[in-house]
Amino acid sequence: MLSASESLLPKGIKDFLPAKAAKIAYLRQILEDVFSRWAFRPIIPPSLEFLHVLERGLGEGLQEKTFRFDDRQGGRLVAFPPDITPQVARIVATRMREAPLPFRLSYTGRVLRHTEEQAGKDRELFQSGVELIGLQSPEADAEMIAMAVECLQSLGAEDFTIDIGQVEFFRGAIEGLPASGVLSLEIQRAIARKDVSELRKMLEEIPLTDRKREEILALPRLFGGREVLERAAGVVTNDRSRRALENLEQVLKVLDVHGVEDYITFDLGELRGLDYHTGIIFQGFLEGIGRAVCSGGRYDNLIARYGLAAPATGFTFNLLNLLFSLDRKLDEAVAPSTDALIFQPDPDKLPAQRIARALRKRGYSAARDMLPRGLDETIVYAEKMNYRFVMVVREKGGEVRIIRLADRSERTLPFNEVLADHFVL
Amino acid sequence: MLSASESLLPKGIKDFLPAKAAKIAYLRQILEDVFSRWAFRPIIPPSLEFLHVLERGLGEGLQEKTFRFDDRQGGRLVAFPPDITPQVARIVATRMREAPLPFRLSYTGRVLRHTEEQAGKDRELFQSGVELIGLQSPEADAEMIAMAVECLQSLGAEDFTIDIGQVEFFRGAIEGLPASGVLSLEIQRAIARKDVSELRKMLEEIPLTDRKREEILALPRLFGGREVLERAAGVVTNDRSRRALENLEQVLKVLDVHGVEDYITFDLGELRGLDYHTGIIFQGFLEGIGRAVCSGGRYDNLIARYGLAAPATGFTFNLLNLLFSLDRKLDEAVAPSTDALIFQPDPDKLPAQRIARALRKRGYSAARDMLPRGLDETIVYAEKMNYRFVMVVREKGGEVRIIRLADRSERTLPFNEVLADHFVL
Repeated sequence: MLSASESLLPKGIKDFLPAKAAKIAYLRQILEDVFSRWAFRPIIPPSLEFLHVLERGLGEGLQEKTFRFDDRQGGRLVAFPPDITPQVARIVATRMREAPLPFRLSYTGRVLRHTEEQAGKDRELFQSGVELIGLQSPEADAEMIAMAVECLQSLGAEDFTIDIGQVEFFRGAIEGLPASGVLSLEIQRAIARKDVSELRKMLEEIPLTDRKREEILALPRLFGGREVLERAAGVVTNDRSRRALENLEQVLKVLDVHGVEDYITFDLGELRGLDYHTGIIFQGFLEGIGRAVCSGGRYDNLIARYGLAAPATGFTFNLLNLLFSLDRKLDEAVAPSTDALIFQPDPDKLPAQRIARALRKRGYSAARDMLPRGLDETIVYAEKMNYRFVMVVREKGGEVRIIRLADRSERTLPFNEVLADHFVL
Repeated sequence: MLSASESLLPKGIKDFLPAKAAKIAYLRQILEDVFSRWAFRPIIPPSLEFLHVLERGLGEGLQEKTFRFDDRQGGRLVAFPPDITPQVARIVATRMREAPLPFRLSYTGRVLRHTEEQAGKDRELFQSGVELIGLQSPEADAEMIAMAVECLQSLGAEDFTIDIGQVEFFRGAIEGLPASGVLSLEIQRAIARKDVSELRKMLEEIPLTDRKREEILALPRLFGGREVLERAAGVVTNDRSRRALENLEQVLKVLDVHGVEDYITFDLGELRGLDYHTGIIFQGFLEGIGRAVCSGGRYDNLIARYGLAAPATGFTFNLLNLLFSLDRKLDEAVAPSTDALIFQPDPDKLPAQRIARALRKRGYSAARDMLPRGLDETIVYAEKMNYRFVMVVREKGGEVRIIRLADRSERTLPFNEVLADHFVL
């Protein structure tokens, strides 16, 4: 015997029963509809890749998290992708070279990632995302952010923010610090944790001008509304960061036109980008929930790793984080119910089958109850399984009794009336 | 540099570019719509399972084909499922015990299976299927077959057959043959190959009554239309096979009511069932194509392997075989085009963004061309990328020029006319 369900699945791996699965399908559908309206076309990268091919496109962080194993057929190491963007980069660079840029591509898929042992986090992630390939311009970055906003609006999210960073601003600020590799890494971590006092201590150990010190000390505090960009302009001491700020201003200008500025916040001390990011990065959050529901950004060097120099930007939604954030709200949108369960006590099942067929033809969901049981038991079953109606169908030409389970109200209609095109359940 | 695309993916693994990916999405959508109308509700089993848990539900054939590896986190062998039905069995037996039977469950997922080295077959399969759990009756088997027919009809397939077998008929016929294990296996293989002369030779080596010999020799020939059941009744010598024939007759009786008899053929020498099958099995074929597009059958003992005794039946569609079989036909149903590409030569992008937004709101797919290039180049790009229209948008309040790429016909409308709710592209 197998025991408690917990131990039946590897850590961080879950089943989704109908209530949640229907919500995941709904989230996916809404997102894919937005992608399609913005002229993105689907591609399907595979579940399996050669490790050496995949790794070209993975940062160190994700390389460590990759599920890898020997392929019995072929004898090489293969991997289950922890990220779909490098797969899209490979496909674009090797299989779509003939087509003219830009490409607008979308995908939905699952990825596997190892997590820290104790974290209890999901190791299987569901992602729906887009890649906009071949455009360098701030308009393209703005398109990604505007789309992410439209996705969240289409999902019925109300209070959310898109938090924007620019990896070049950060890189410019810490570039050429006279610190050892170890210390440099610790400085970056302190900035990421927004631990100003720790950061101050570390910076005391290295020779810096006051202005440079102030620039770096400002990083953990450069988050908030639009005023962040002004504050950043006031402390910046290097050209790389200055260019990054200009780029942010340009993207913002386009975003103003998109009318999404109310949702935008900034965090210039943010390092969350996957390490292939090269410019604007962003994450979406729902009010009060710390898990990002979407993330994305510019990655101008990734596709070149597969042999085609092309700038690109994109984003992906994490469907499980969306489900977690919107679970209650989705109860309204995703009807957990089935329309009709047909009770058919007579030996001749033809009348019930005809009724079921007619209902389905009109888009209703309908099943026949096939267990030999009484009407009372059928009703108990139908209620537990979230049916809306039980229909009692006897011989052909007779009458059909329709019981609405919500209030047990009933109506009885002639058989042919239920078959008719104008019948409404 | 990475070279030819062929060597970039493991054997039997494919990418799907937009034209095919859109068709796969369409196939999936049509099937899921049918499943939903028949009151099946989705579940999502995971991509990863413990091997020892999964193997309980796998026959020997699939055990050999399972991708397996060590889970760094947890240290046990894990596997990528080669079949979704055992996952559903596990979920039902361990996580849905409280809910009343029957269950109607559906899924869409990908499975990985090793194949014979030279075969060149797909190792990643896309499956959409259903499981009807808790019903013993022939009506349930008939529901599966009727649904499979409705799926194929909904997909626009015209000439197809559902080929029905009954594993118990076959098992009854070869049960207790006085042959060694090896010979017995060879006999089964000869029957599966429909190699009557080889079979006759093998049967000469073992002591059998004439009637028994005739019964077994008949197996490779028991395929065709409804008359097969009469021929089978004429040669049958054992009760197990007789009960299987009765079961087939009962299922057929219900199918007559469903009105799908035109699509039905029989093959009683068929062994194709996965080894968990216990009764009626079936496969769907499109005219002239040897690859089954769907397969299914009864499996009354599988769920018990996970601790819940429940009869069940189900089927799954192989989306890649469907794609292969219906590829051309799907060209009509799955529009490869995007509606509008917006050309916006002026620096102020707001008018173009407003037009794009208005089009999307009405369900059109629209993108703005963001590369600095002339109208001629934009049109060349739009044609290559299958856009239907190029729209030239200049300043606000001006006119919008709409070029239909199919015939280069043009019309020019006031800006506000294109924004209006009644605008039709």
